[in-house]
Amino acid sequence: MKNAILKKLGLVLVVAALGFGSTASAQTTPLASWNNGATKQSIISFVKKVTKPGSPDFVPAAERIAVFDNDGTLWSEQPMYFQLAFALDRVKALAPQHPEWKEKEPFKSVLADDMAGVAAGGEKGLLELVAATHGGITSEAFDKAVKEWLATAKHPRFKRPYTDLVYQPMIELLVYLRANGFKTYIVSGGGVEFMRAFTAKVYGVPPEQVVGSSIKTKFEVRDGKPVIARLSEIDFIDDKAGKPVGIHKFIGRRPIMAFGNSDGDFEMLEWTTSGPGPRFGLIVHHDDAVREWAYDRESHVGRLKRALDEAPQRGWAVASMQNDWKRVYPFDKK
Amino acid sequence: MKNAILKKLGLVLVVAALGFGSTASAQTTPLASWNNGATKQSIISFVKKVTKPGSPDFVPAAERIAVFDNDGTLWSEQPMYFQLAFALDRVKALAPQHPEWKEKEPFKSVLADDMAGVAAGGEKGLLELVAATHGGITSEAFDKAVKEWLATAKHPRFKRPYTDLVYQPMIELLVYLRANGFKTYIVSGGGVEFMRAFTAKVYGVPPEQVVGSSIKTKFEVRDGKPVIARLSEIDFIDDKAGKPVGIHKFIGRRPIMAFGNSDGDFEMLEWTTSGPGPRFGLIVHHDDAVREWAYDRESHVGRLKRALDEAPQRGWAVASMQNDWKRVYPFDKK
Repeated sequence: MKNAILKKLGLVLVVAALGFGSTASAQTTPLASWNNGATKQSIISFVKKVTKPGSPDFVPAAERIAVFDNDGTLWSEQPMYFQLAFALDRVKALAPQHPEWKEKEPFKSVLADDMAGVAAGGEKGLLELVAATHGGITSEAFDKAVKEWLATAKHPRFKRPYTDLVYQPMIELLVYLRANGFKTYIVSGGGVEFMRAFTAKVYGVPPEQVVGSSIKTKFEVRDGKPVIARLSEIDFIDDKAGKPVGIHKFIGRRPIMAFGNSDGDFEMLEWTTSGPGPRFGLIVHHDDAVREWAYDRESHVGRLKRALDEAPQRGWAVASMQNDWKRVYPFDKK
Repeated sequence: MKNAILKKLGLVLVVAALGFGSTASAQTTPLASWNNGATKQSIISFVKKVTKPGSPDFVPAAERIAVFDNDGTLWSEQPMYFQLAFALDRVKALAPQHPEWKEKEPFKSVLADDMAGVAAGGEKGLLELVAATHGGITSEAFDKAVKEWLATAKHPRFKRPYTDLVYQPMIELLVYLRANGFKTYIVSGGGVEFMRAFTAKVYGVPPEQVVGSSIKTKFEVRDGKPVIARLSEIDFIDDKAGKPVGIHKFIGRRPIMAFGNSDGDFEMLEWTTSGPGPRFGLIVHHDDAVREWAYDRESHVGRLKRALDEAPQRGWAVASMQNDWKRVYPFDKK
């Protein structure tokens, strides 16, 4: 009996993956962790109209591109960007090989857990941190380092792996869109190789659908073995006006749906929603101090002001974490 | 009756698209324009072993990435790269707006059809040509210019549109691989936006699966309308050791099959075929002076020396256009 149900479910998934039909057959209840209301309805109506053959708003599957910011849109970004937590932990892990760091900023402050000291180093200090923790190794070794960190590090507030702090409603949204023939992309200011270490497993987004900031790399043959060596110089910053540039460079076509949470996503939403035909933009609004954090309007990290102010006139939906989401994290009670 | 056959065929296509089965059900005879022989057999055996569930060489569909060079591998590159022909024609089209070009190199030579004069300008002259013909307009306008050129320009030898000069056996190979669950990518030294204007239609390769050289772009809002503006500075050269870098940057995983035709593809084949597990590399060898051109070993454009010399020891297949291909172009007689 159980076997038969599993088989049936498998078939439904296959059909859904093919993008047949206009409803998300893969989920018995699509967007189950979204409260019923205007926001959820706006998503569903949009998807219905662009997937309905013969509809004036029909969009062929090949053009159903949806782009998602990562930090603050698919997972949390407090008390700091998770990639920064990785960099700080990595300084500590590498410190025994660098005795000079005890006396050298920004490493000295990192080793003393002095965040004000790290911040005082400004952009120059941050670039030195990136170079020391993200550069100078092969891509293969970096991927391994990220995976090991994700498997062992715990978030300070929730005492859980960082990858537990993904937003259940957004995961359901990714699944729902893919079931409706969308290709889901991540377009984030985060490092592309950092994200690629977990996006397939956590979000179902394969490496080739991740666009992010990057450092330069070089192809080399070392002792007869070809490697991609990570250098210490920034190649591309995928943030603000860099996001449409990254989308154009990596994807080569304009998305029809975009999801973000901060003013760093403004231009991505602007570019996406100003094209011809049906367009959809949504902002995740961090207003839930109990289950997550309430911070965005006046925050330094994930500041959301212009995009929130202009959302109504631009027709962008705003998802209130407090009101629109039944659950925030997968581990929250249903 | 006809309807029933179409339905059955549709089902077969669906099954093939899912990567079920180990043969290319989508084509009644896969690789029909390839002569039977060692080269064709090596492709088929490889695809069979990596798609057979339970085989020790089985590769999950998500990891079936195949990369193809474009110029000389998917379409011809004689008497010059087709993109260069586009650039030269574009100088002529834009000349009335630039009266100063009559006296200024490299434009003066282009307008006089003096190829030796153009060549004398070296790399500096070429970069000026690229800037003048590929930069300074929006991506949307550039895409339109390429499409218009492709629709009207004729190849000097064959008096046909340039997109007619694609290799029928390679088109069949792309179809065959996709029918077996492969994701097919173009990884070319050519300009990415030039290629994206036709690859979906001609090769069935969507824009997001094209990796190429690029110039820098900038996001701007002009009179309230967001645009991607093409600047005049080179961003990335996707050639030689740049190819594995481009693959890593855009795709984020190592392909298992690679196809090229010149020493500019050497590192791409080296990177692809040196990974763990089953790997396949193939070189298209231009040795057919009658149906195409015989040129590669000593040529400036598309020079193939090191890759051809090392092919046997590296286990790369070599496809002789003369011996392995029944037809070269789709318009050749069957």
